[in-house]
Amino acid sequence: MKIAIAQLNFHIGNFTGNVDKMLAAVAEAKQQGADLVCFSELATCGYPPRDFLEFDDFIRQAEAAVDRLAQAAQGIAIVVGSPSRNPVIEGKDLYNSAFFLADGKIQQVQHKTLLPTYDIFDEYRYFEPAHEFKVVEYQGKRIALTVCEDIWNIGNENPLYTICPMDELMPQRPDFILNLSASPFSHTQAESRIHVVRSNIERYQIPMFYVNHAGAQTELIFDGGSIVMSPDGKLHDELPYFEECVRTYALDEVIEGGVERTQPKDKMALIHDAIVLGVKDYFGKLGFKKAILGLSGGIDSAVTAALAARALGPENVRVVLMPSQYSSDHSIDDARALAENMGLKYDIIPIQPTFAAYEEMLKPQFAGLAFNITEENIQARIRGMILMAMSNKFGHIVLNTSNKSEAAVGYGTLYGDMCGGLSVIGDVYKTEVFELARYINKDGEVIPENTITKPPSAELRPNQKDSDSLPDYEILDAVLYQYIEKRQGPRELIDMGYDEALVRRILRLVNINEFKRFQTAPTIRVSTKAFGMGRRMPIVGKYLS
Amino acid sequence: MKIAIAQLNFHIGNFTGNVDKMLAAVAEAKQQGADLVCFSELATCGYPPRDFLEFDDFIRQAEAAVDRLAQAAQGIAIVVGSPSRNPVIEGKDLYNSAFFLADGKIQQVQHKTLLPTYDIFDEYRYFEPAHEFKVVEYQGKRIALTVCEDIWNIGNENPLYTICPMDELMPQRPDFILNLSASPFSHTQAESRIHVVRSNIERYQIPMFYVNHAGAQTELIFDGGSIVMSPDGKLHDELPYFEECVRTYALDEVIEGGVERTQPKDKMALIHDAIVLGVKDYFGKLGFKKAILGLSGGIDSAVTAALAARALGPENVRVVLMPSQYSSDHSIDDARALAENMGLKYDIIPIQPTFAAYEEMLKPQFAGLAFNITEENIQARIRGMILMAMSNKFGHIVLNTSNKSEAAVGYGTLYGDMCGGLSVIGDVYKTEVFELARYINKDGEVIPENTITKPPSAELRPNQKDSDSLPDYEILDAVLYQYIEKRQGPRELIDMGYDEALVRRILRLVNINEFKRFQTAPTIRVSTKAFGMGRRMPIVGKYLS
Repeated sequence: MKIAIAQLNFHIGNFTGNVDKMLAAVAEAKQQGADLVCFSELATCGYPPRDFLEFDDFIRQAEAAVDRLAQAAQGIAIVVGSPSRNPVIEGKDLYNSAFFLADGKIQQVQHKTLLPTYDIFDEYRYFEPAHEFKVVEYQGKRIALTVCEDIWNIGNENPLYTICPMDELMPQRPDFILNLSASPFSHTQAESRIHVVRSNIERYQIPMFYVNHAGAQTELIFDGGSIVMSPDGKLHDELPYFEECVRTYALDEVIEGGVERTQPKDKMALIHDAIVLGVKDYFGKLGFKKAILGLSGGIDSAVTAALAARALGPENVRVVLMPSQYSSDHSIDDARALAENMGLKYDIIPIQPTFAAYEEMLKPQFAGLAFNITEENIQARIRGMILMAMSNKFGHIVLNTSNKSEAAVGYGTLYGDMCGGLSVIGDVYKTEVFELARYINKDGEVIPENTITKPPSAELRPNQKDSDSLPDYEILDAVLYQYIEKRQGPRELIDMGYDEALVRRILRLVNINEFKRFQTAPTIRVSTKAFGMGRRMPIVGKYLS
Repeated sequence: MKIAIAQLNFHIGNFTGNVDKMLAAVAEAKQQGADLVCFSELATCGYPPRDFLEFDDFIRQAEAAVDRLAQAAQGIAIVVGSPSRNPVIEGKDLYNSAFFLADGKIQQVQHKTLLPTYDIFDEYRYFEPAHEFKVVEYQGKRIALTVCEDIWNIGNENPLYTICPMDELMPQRPDFILNLSASPFSHTQAESRIHVVRSNIERYQIPMFYVNHAGAQTELIFDGGSIVMSPDGKLHDELPYFEECVRTYALDEVIEGGVERTQPKDKMALIHDAIVLGVKDYFGKLGFKKAILGLSGGIDSAVTAALAARALGPENVRVVLMPSQYSSDHSIDDARALAENMGLKYDIIPIQPTFAAYEEMLKPQFAGLAFNITEENIQARIRGMILMAMSNKFGHIVLNTSNKSEAAVGYGTLYGDMCGGLSVIGDVYKTEVFELARYINKDGEVIPENTITKPPSAELRPNQKDSDSLPDYEILDAVLYQYIEKRQGPRELIDMGYDEALVRRILRLVNINEFKRFQTAPTIRVSTKAFGMGRRMPIVGKYLS
């Protein structure tokens, strides 16, 4: 038997497009001689469909998509993930299912058992877990169908769950496991996935074909890296990261084992490629081509511009230099150098006259009051408004250039530098932004050296430096990482040796700035805990604040 | 036995403040002669604590809060909701628990069984359901402790659940039911609650004491209305809506029944009072006093200003009239009349000179291009920036004035009129805004008649009317209600008799504007389906769009 796995890039709710893409993959799998082709979790509707699942119309369209695929299951079996209805009144209305299609119809349906309901996942919001387990028999082989999380509780070692689907299926002596996944990227996730697949293999001693999505859905990047593993625990193959791929394997050869193929998993390379895909798909799937962003001469906007140019092509990225009277000459030079290095169209729009108009307009209200953060924010907001006006006039999407450290402590102006349709590096700490800049420059200078080495500054008042208002980024980022990713509290952080006053100040800044993050653009997720759908915090609270 | 129920207004994460408040209520209950006082669900930490529950430090503080309360349980028993740890490794780390405190210590803990995981609720994200059920014995009475949703599956008639906690407890012959709730307001919720309590009474024939929160937590308003119901199904008492209250009942009298007290449930009165509380608590709990908003002369900003003045006092609400060359004289007159009716401090800041500065600044880029939505948005954004600058300078929070119809179809400018820290009427359809204006005027004109009767207009270009761009609000709101609250699809809407092209246009507008709603302020929820945490939609999708 020959088995094809197809990691494809789906578009949420685009049933016609998704099925068309799968039919092309079915044809390709047939050409490769496959007897069976396996797609990923909820492939018909895309992942995550979120509350669209609550619309009967949406489910009807998913059912029609499965029917269309079933008709194409001639001379080849198709395994595809799609929502299905719970036929009894008890329990949630839907299952998250793997459909086995052959001979022109639905032959069998296996529902997902383990429904992740943590971090970015809300599956128990929608789905009833499976209570029945039955292998599929096809061409003399017995196939264990599993959906994503189903293989993440190996022999009930995961305390979140009380049932192990593979333990239920093993008495039926399956010959191999198919796993239909929708496993979002973080820079450690590929390693985790391989580890989990290998732990299954060690326990069950049969091969596994693991199929992931490859494509971005707003915040979430699905990084592909689908896995074929032999009973000897060798990684027989791993599909490429961040791109679509259909590849066919002879089951005999997979069972025989002895082959090990792997891909490098360098953190910065993965983050770079993830963000590039994230930007590309955000634009492509919304039907936009062109991005615009402000270039300050600083490292955040430089890295954002470089990533955008790689995602969309330099011809589709327009940058705007918006100096004020507080901008240093080197900032403008650095920004211009970057634009020229990358071949980006750039505009220089000084904001001083408009800033003066604001001062004049507000003179009756602000008479006698000193320059303070209000005027800093006005400058940032004029810049935001310029970008929004240009995007309105020319059809760009504005890219947000905030990093994770700033987003965490609220070092940014709402509707100013925090504006934009997508936060490109909002899940990358400032110290990592420097690493990313070095990675971008690895084959030659893209980001000017001076942009990387000069002290960070918002340049909103004379001689301003980030270090005037914020702790050193090395310390700040270390504390933020422990608080955000590791959920350590003040006591634990102080026990680690961090200064108590500093810890309390940083944690307070994170918590009191929830209102700002609530209103910012979706952030491309590259870590295990990003701001956004996976981190849900009260705005009105009084905890560590 | 005398039983006190205490519906209080808690602050999320403010353990010290919450316990202090409960200790004062314990003293009050003692003065009223109570043998037992019952607080609401997760009262120690406030509801909903969201991902704070994932911090060990947060749980330690909750444990310390329960210990403090236990020490005060002398001469009176205290029942309080608080998270507790799951002592075994299997399952989620926490329970959502009711603690029974007496004689200075924790006597018994009953965990919540039914964990709502839909709409605004995420309880299975955090909590393990209870598997054990044991009545509490106290002063010769047997008490059934239940937490919120536990009473919403009566005899397993709710298909979401497979266990009915009261059916489990009844063999232990409880004398009465205590229910600790955190039941958020919608304008139909008080009726639903009474219906559910009565259905329980009909089945179990014992009295129930149902304790809700009374207070707002950002989007969610907890409206109080705690219930005491007799075995004869009579509503023995209902605590006031939207305010704190501690009240004690003789169990004998409740059992005897025959008393029926109820409160009016007029839709507009409830919505009005809910929003007033929502604004008041948003400010109070964030430590702010003063609001600012733009007054256009239209009905949305007028209603928002009136509600804000009632919540914060007119002396704490500042309004800004920001006419452009497209503003009509009557708009300024209407806005000024409203400010004077309510005694609000107002500024008039014409935006024309700053608009001219933008035009001048962008002339090189926009040369030869016609006035279009870009220039409309610039005007809206100048206004947003004025409000933000004033709020920065003087310490206001900006109130957003968008209504639900606009928010639904994206009829608003991001960072312009969509700015602000809180959306006051963002869950009120335009047609309902008119009703609310009439309600506000019921005891005399607050909102000028002309503001209510003139045709709505954004006044961003000459002679603009909302009806140029949008369907008639009567039809628009009816379709939106069916799509948003009732989740009807295009087929169902067309079957109801709505024009197909119109239905497709409206649904498309809702779906393609998800990116705008993603970046707007939290919205005070008054309906059964508000934009925000209870409605989770993909931004990048292609469904009905």
